[in-house]
Amino acid sequence: MEQAFLDWLSRRLPDSPSAPWGIADDTALVRLSGGELLVTTDLISDEVDFRLTEVDPRRVGHKALAVNLSDMAAMAATPVAAVISLLLPRDGVECHGDATRTPKRLDALEIAQLLYEGIFPLAEEYHVAIAGGDVNCWSYPLAINVTVLGEPGRGGPLRRNGAKPGDWILVTGELGGSILGHHLDFEPRVNQAKLLHDNYPLHAGMDISDGLALDVWRLAQASGCGAVVNLESVPISTAARKLASMVHAKQSALEHALGDGEDFELLLAAAPSVAQQILRDQPLSGLQLTHIGCFVEEGGLWSEAAGKRQPLPPTGYLHGVP
Amino acid sequence: MEQAFLDWLSRRLPDSPSAPWGIADDTALVRLSGGELLVTTDLISDEVDFRLTEVDPRRVGHKALAVNLSDMAAMAATPVAAVISLLLPRDGVECHGDATRTPKRLDALEIAQLLYEGIFPLAEEYHVAIAGGDVNCWSYPLAINVTVLGEPGRGGPLRRNGAKPGDWILVTGELGGSILGHHLDFEPRVNQAKLLHDNYPLHAGMDISDGLALDVWRLAQASGCGAVVNLESVPISTAARKLASMVHAKQSALEHALGDGEDFELLLAAAPSVAQQILRDQPLSGLQLTHIGCFVEEGGLWSEAAGKRQPLPPTGYLHGVP
Repeated sequence: MEQAFLDWLSRRLPDSPSAPWGIADDTALVRLSGGELLVTTDLISDEVDFRLTEVDPRRVGHKALAVNLSDMAAMAATPVAAVISLLLPRDGVECHGDATRTPKRLDALEIAQLLYEGIFPLAEEYHVAIAGGDVNCWSYPLAINVTVLGEPGRGGPLRRNGAKPGDWILVTGELGGSILGHHLDFEPRVNQAKLLHDNYPLHAGMDISDGLALDVWRLAQASGCGAVVNLESVPISTAARKLASMVHAKQSALEHALGDGEDFELLLAAAPSVAQQILRDQPLSGLQLTHIGCFVEEGGLWSEAAGKRQPLPPTGYLHGVP
Repeated sequence: MEQAFLDWLSRRLPDSPSAPWGIADDTALVRLSGGELLVTTDLISDEVDFRLTEVDPRRVGHKALAVNLSDMAAMAATPVAAVISLLLPRDGVECHGDATRTPKRLDALEIAQLLYEGIFPLAEEYHVAIAGGDVNCWSYPLAINVTVLGEPGRGGPLRRNGAKPGDWILVTGELGGSILGHHLDFEPRVNQAKLLHDNYPLHAGMDISDGLALDVWRLAQASGCGAVVNLESVPISTAARKLASMVHAKQSALEHALGDGEDFELLLAAAPSVAQQILRDQPLSGLQLTHIGCFVEEGGLWSEAAGKRQPLPPTGYLHGVP
């Protein structure tokens, strides 16, 4: 339903000089009389994006802000301020999670405070001001909406639509298996994206939020080209390997890396010479950059393994959407 | 719980040069390198702010944007752009409402589209660009979060904290009874607030969202003074009179006007000479401005009727909060 809705909305939305990009990127560009800013909004909810009965609300608060900071990282932008809306379960929640060893009932006020205790350290780390918000209670599970405002970096916003056939595909970190905890505790790649965009002429970028295959396909689509992913090069996380080694596992570690989503790593397009320089420099202390394929003239998504190229389904995770 | 949380948050929030006001006003001021902007966010949800089984989703969409535009009006600001997050009931909803005479099942996509069909005309009227958003489904009722970005008007932002003892209290329109429909269909006072703030030296302002008594008390509190409301002057809406005339009615029309909330009219403070000029001019074609009291040195909220002054409880509606 998500894609059908976005297609409808894209057709239906009037053009506006105040928001010249439409809804095509990780953040929106808004033109004010004083200049341009970037804005992104994400709503996460219980049972879809986390399970409040099983995790410390601080981790949920961290995630609620971090997914938005990752959208800022996707544009190599600097986040500046956030506004936060809480929709709290009026009767609280029975928390069996990592907050306590024994089950503990948290009331709505305690949930709200713990959410913010997870938000504060991340906001402080990235100098994001909590500028305002809204708080409400109701008879259903928790939902949190965060909107982050930011500013483009020196090189301007890094968009999805600039990849060129021949460009190399680079990714940061390792992919897959985020369900084991990374999807809550990840560090948004804000500083890494800015460092790369400030120092190398990147063509396009986004964050990997819905799965590598789907997001590579999206970046290629936005750029009017296709992409080939070299399956042997995809950096597979320990968590993805762990999932694949479980009894009754249905997917290989590679399949997890391709389709799990919520990696929140960076996906980048750069000319081969630039990409080679980045790979030689490995400028992100401790965070590996990997060459996993290239963009091609022909539309669509392709995999390459053992020298053989074949169509790759753009699998991925669409949030809460059947 | 709302007030306890806001008190806690105010103490806990670090000062930030990017958001110098803290969380004290209808909108937040955010400082970017290019200038200042105002941002506000509001989340509304089924069974708390509307009943999706009973009303056309277009009216819900209108309300979701309008409450944010009313916050911009509260600051006499110009709204520029909005981002919208939807949390949709995955299985749709059985709508008995005014959308159809006969019950009709709407699926999640139809609900999303109808919400936007209610948002578009209002956005167009106030030149607000829909810059982006987020869409999600889950197994619970509908929630919508809207964030609006705006710019201060020529006179700068109209804040809550500038009322002075002796200032007159003015309100636009008529109050009370919004539950009969006004809370969904109201017109935010964006243009009226700008016209007033551009042409008269106002001291303070806000929108009446939670009830006249509570909001007058808040404005007085923020300004470090008290307020006296002349009960005989409060403009009472037809809807408030209708509620009071119903069988089993528990409140008078005046009590509805004082405490119902969701009027989304303007509450203003101005020096007596300025207020008198405004009242003579009545510059808001078709929308009456009424003098309902004054601010006083002594803290607290007071009513005056038949020459007698006594404490007035700051009754009002706290959204979904027991």
